[in-house]
Amino acid sequence: MSLQRLTALRALMAGHPTALAAYIIPTADAHNSEYISPADARREWISGFTGSAGTAVVTANKALVWTDGRYYTQFEKEADLAMWTLMKQSLPETPTMEKWLTSNLIAGSVVGVDPHTMTREEWTPLQTALSKAKMQLVAVESNLVDKARISLDDPPPKRPQNDIIHLPLEYTGKTAGEKIHDLRVGMLEKKASALVITALDEVAYTLNLRGSDIRYNPVFFSYLLLTPDTVTLFWSGGRIPDDIERNLSDEGVKIVGRPYDDVIGGLSNLARELSNMGDGEHSVWISNEASEAVHRAVSGEGVLKNPLNLISEVSPVALAKLVKNDVELEGFRKCHIRDGTAVCRFFRWLHQEVDSGNKITEVEAAERLLEFRKDEKDFMGPSFETISGAGENGAVIHYTPSSDSPRIITADDVYLLDSGGQYKDGTTDITRTRHMSEPTDLQKETFTRVLKGQIAIGAALYPVGVKGNVLDSLARKYLWDVGLDYAHGTGHGVGHFLNVHEGPSGISWRPYPHDPGLKMGQILSNEPGYYRVGEFGIRIEDLVETISVTNDTTHPRAKDLLGDYNGRGVLGFNTITLVPNQRKFIKTELLDDFELKYINSYHKRVLDTLGPILKNRGLMEDYAWLEKECSPLM
Amino acid sequence: MSLQRLTALRALMAGHPTALAAYIIPTADAHNSEYISPADARREWISGFTGSAGTAVVTANKALVWTDGRYYTQFEKEADLAMWTLMKQSLPETPTMEKWLTSNLIAGSVVGVDPHTMTREEWTPLQTALSKAKMQLVAVESNLVDKARISLDDPPPKRPQNDIIHLPLEYTGKTAGEKIHDLRVGMLEKKASALVITALDEVAYTLNLRGSDIRYNPVFFSYLLLTPDTVTLFWSGGRIPDDIERNLSDEGVKIVGRPYDDVIGGLSNLARELSNMGDGEHSVWISNEASEAVHRAVSGEGVLKNPLNLISEVSPVALAKLVKNDVELEGFRKCHIRDGTAVCRFFRWLHQEVDSGNKITEVEAAERLLEFRKDEKDFMGPSFETISGAGENGAVIHYTPSSDSPRIITADDVYLLDSGGQYKDGTTDITRTRHMSEPTDLQKETFTRVLKGQIAIGAALYPVGVKGNVLDSLARKYLWDVGLDYAHGTGHGVGHFLNVHEGPSGISWRPYPHDPGLKMGQILSNEPGYYRVGEFGIRIEDLVETISVTNDTTHPRAKDLLGDYNGRGVLGFNTITLVPNQRKFIKTELLDDFELKYINSYHKRVLDTLGPILKNRGLMEDYAWLEKECSPLM
Repeated sequence: MSLQRLTALRALMAGHPTALAAYIIPTADAHNSEYISPADARREWISGFTGSAGTAVVTANKALVWTDGRYYTQFEKEADLAMWTLMKQSLPETPTMEKWLTSNLIAGSVVGVDPHTMTREEWTPLQTALSKAKMQLVAVESNLVDKARISLDDPPPKRPQNDIIHLPLEYTGKTAGEKIHDLRVGMLEKKASALVITALDEVAYTLNLRGSDIRYNPVFFSYLLLTPDTVTLFWSGGRIPDDIERNLSDEGVKIVGRPYDDVIGGLSNLARELSNMGDGEHSVWISNEASEAVHRAVSGEGVLKNPLNLISEVSPVALAKLVKNDVELEGFRKCHIRDGTAVCRFFRWLHQEVDSGNKITEVEAAERLLEFRKDEKDFMGPSFETISGAGENGAVIHYTPSSDSPRIITADDVYLLDSGGQYKDGTTDITRTRHMSEPTDLQKETFTRVLKGQIAIGAALYPVGVKGNVLDSLARKYLWDVGLDYAHGTGHGVGHFLNVHEGPSGISWRPYPHDPGLKMGQILSNEPGYYRVGEFGIRIEDLVETISVTNDTTHPRAKDLLGDYNGRGVLGFNTITLVPNQRKFIKTELLDDFELKYINSYHKRVLDTLGPILKNRGLMEDYAWLEKECSPLM
Repeated sequence: MSLQRLTALRALMAGHPTALAAYIIPTADAHNSEYISPADARREWISGFTGSAGTAVVTANKALVWTDGRYYTQFEKEADLAMWTLMKQSLPETPTMEKWLTSNLIAGSVVGVDPHTMTREEWTPLQTALSKAKMQLVAVESNLVDKARISLDDPPPKRPQNDIIHLPLEYTGKTAGEKIHDLRVGMLEKKASALVITALDEVAYTLNLRGSDIRYNPVFFSYLLLTPDTVTLFWSGGRIPDDIERNLSDEGVKIVGRPYDDVIGGLSNLARELSNMGDGEHSVWISNEASEAVHRAVSGEGVLKNPLNLISEVSPVALAKLVKNDVELEGFRKCHIRDGTAVCRFFRWLHQEVDSGNKITEVEAAERLLEFRKDEKDFMGPSFETISGAGENGAVIHYTPSSDSPRIITADDVYLLDSGGQYKDGTTDITRTRHMSEPTDLQKETFTRVLKGQIAIGAALYPVGVKGNVLDSLARKYLWDVGLDYAHGTGHGVGHFLNVHEGPSGISWRPYPHDPGLKMGQILSNEPGYYRVGEFGIRIEDLVETISVTNDTTHPRAKDLLGDYNGRGVLGFNTITLVPNQRKFIKTELLDDFELKYINSYHKRVLDTLGPILKNRGLMEDYAWLEKECSPLM
């Protein structure tokens, strides 16, 4: 099947007006979304590889996918390795796609890509590199994978246009009117005549609206265009429903709806209008993560004699929503109490089932977990596809259990559960790893080293404004000390009832290029791990909020502070995830006093917070389980 | 005086054919040297600020210097603050020079700079940013500061052209012929018709020659041009002396000497010749750290119709000399034994003098240290200006003691000594901080936290190929834990009987942009610190070599290894500096068992290595002191 698809694509490449020596298929949709709609799953269709990140390149006789360490194992399971080559992009010896193209194609080659699926930030350096090597990067307006699908009678699914909902002020803490006011103040400072918002979560955040066009991500296909006096939403639904219009009006926003597919034409018109005003030069502010296609349209490139000036940089909406307001933070803390309750109930249930010899598959476990979450107030659905991996499957970093090859969770298994919920007041993302009976010594040792790294981040203090990457090795140290490591970052940002992966900050050995430096009020994950391919996987993940720390703060290091980094200010984390780690997985002799106290104090907080809720609901078996799990380690 | 100089410069700026709204004065000479000859000390002359790093910008009514945290205190002491503004470039709130220029000058402004004093890597983004803001960056061929000096009858000193020496194979481990052969293999792979080497230490390394044109740096003013069959040295001495020619010939190199000032003409001619050969396109390989002026000359920009293609990237010589060969490494280890002997003898002497109530100044201490080093074989001079700082002066990170304001080292002082030697077999750089009587509790606490960070680096294990920046926070952690930090990086590369600061690797919170990833055989410093302005400064600095670690290696973590990072390989450090840290400065209750064992084992190694040497020389008082200093901590 993969060969047939490749052959169809190659025929289109050869038939392109400028015959294409290579065609690039990024994962991204037109909004640079990390998770995409089936309508945009082009790389998946052509390669068979379903991971959330990766870029395919097809030439006349090669087909390759660049992806990162989370997906090496998965790629080798999913792709047809007779046709497809894995390029391990985390490894220093792997050539970049750019390097590969310039070394493997001959001078004069033309490389094609759909300009909607590549950001300008990616486009420009690639174009420069290819041009240096006497090659050409061309924008192929109609997507060739979509065309290949049609040619094989397997057209891409229709783009969704589901209903949108308004999220009231009690959840968002800030009206859409205030948010747009702040953006317009920024436009004045930048002397920008318009601001184009292209990322789906940024549109949703700005308007205090949510949708369901992409699974797990409460967003809707749209672009938002702000001028000093207009707000235009290019939306798959077209006209704005009356109730939404009323809600926005109550929040001080008068909005105009236009069809989603009008966006390129609409932006081109804007460029022409601004250019024709004859009152001097106009600039448009746009995210550097907007697509090459949008950049071209809104600057009037190739249409206007003097294209408009673009201020293309990290989106101001990305920088605004990165720092959560007090209402959002309080929502995050509250939904983590409810989410923790559900996850604890699930684990109590799972242990009971496995102990009783019942045959629970990974998929059934994930389904049951969903039921527990559904019991909780304001639950809107999972925040990503549940990773429910027993034994060797736990070593697949982004594993998805399948009903086609059911795997029963046995008493001999290490079981890794990475899951999360969307709640109206926040988003959760938690991983716990539990042994279903007795962990081996190696499992205990590696679990404890992962935990030590997780505590090192959870208890870290650091100066205001440092970038998240400087924290990464604190989490790896205890694994590095014995020659072990994990092939993924340590933490990512999390949106507020929005995408579970949110930029531009994060904690990784690889610096996040647009991290503005850590500030109070951010939400990040803290998730070191260890994976033994074919045997077991361990990951421990909490969400944490960045807090300011002085001698009076509730923080394990607050009392010891001797300074505030010469006035820069001290940041630390407050862990908001509330589920105990398995006591018998922890090798206490590897912990120092600080770490032991830290765990016991965390477990006490979990019990003190969740215990009364379980009791109030009469869930006495769950309470008894939690009490045992939270009892102090010595 | 500063006003008169600024006025002279401003007159020249105004009189420039395109009147200059701003003139930039980088620290660098034409070779992007970090330490420069007085002939090139233009920023120092105009601003009064003598630090080793910083860039001055002069406009009609402003004068600013951007410099980093090492120099904040020094700048405020040296520059006339009525005229000069300090821009603290390590702080996130400080605008970059580029940002400052584009926000403070009006559209249409022309900014000038001497293209010899700016690398193309700096030039291009600055030019782009200015051009976006409708400003222009112009190359001012004659340096305006030099002209201002002449106009004030204070001409710049003559460029030195001291003798050069040949460093025999027993020190270098690799002939110049082999080094050039390797570079030519690289040229073939890159399809480069020529390679231009512009950094002074790279020329010295390639030819196994050393000079003394820049104080503390055994280099000589020169450029090296390689083609497949010629080796041309543009050297301030012009014709190559017969003995050097013979030495090089013995190492398989036939070299042609040409005058230093011919380089721009020579490179332009090369460009013309290659372009006229009519056998297709030619490329020239050049370091991205070569000056804008050299880039222009060798590409034939503005002269040839089709300028040559430049392969401008990290210099292959920089990448080659980064990894020391076995002879160089053995030399490093050996000279550190001799250097350690000298430093121990110095501290024994200093304590005796201070204890006896003798009034020793910081300058006298530095002079006496030099005498002890002169007793050691193959000592060629200090590797940088000795930082000999008592009390409050220790808090000035790159302090230079002065005879004009002598400071006596008293029994109440913390005394910081950062010094190093050039030896024919290697370069040393060591800092020790000692209290002259009894440290306070805060001093002990901060010293011990610095030491814990230093041990964390010294004992770290990490995967082959990670960049040095990922290690930085391991050193800061124990200070960060209590709200303290230091405003400099944790480690820099060190040349082999070459520059004491050597790129492109290093350990800092700010990633080294061209760090190729750590490999076995590098030499780095490990030097966390803590500074309390007006009170005292603490720094502990060792040099370490990167070593491969398996279960059989002599390394404190070797036995515990459970893996090799999935085949990537394990790196660690071997500390080669051999001088004890002051026992009474260490608060043992802050150390864990591993750290205590680590220090005791290091001190035992110091005593076992240096003790017999002192005894053999009959230096029994020194031996007794060392034995006491190295006795185990409990």
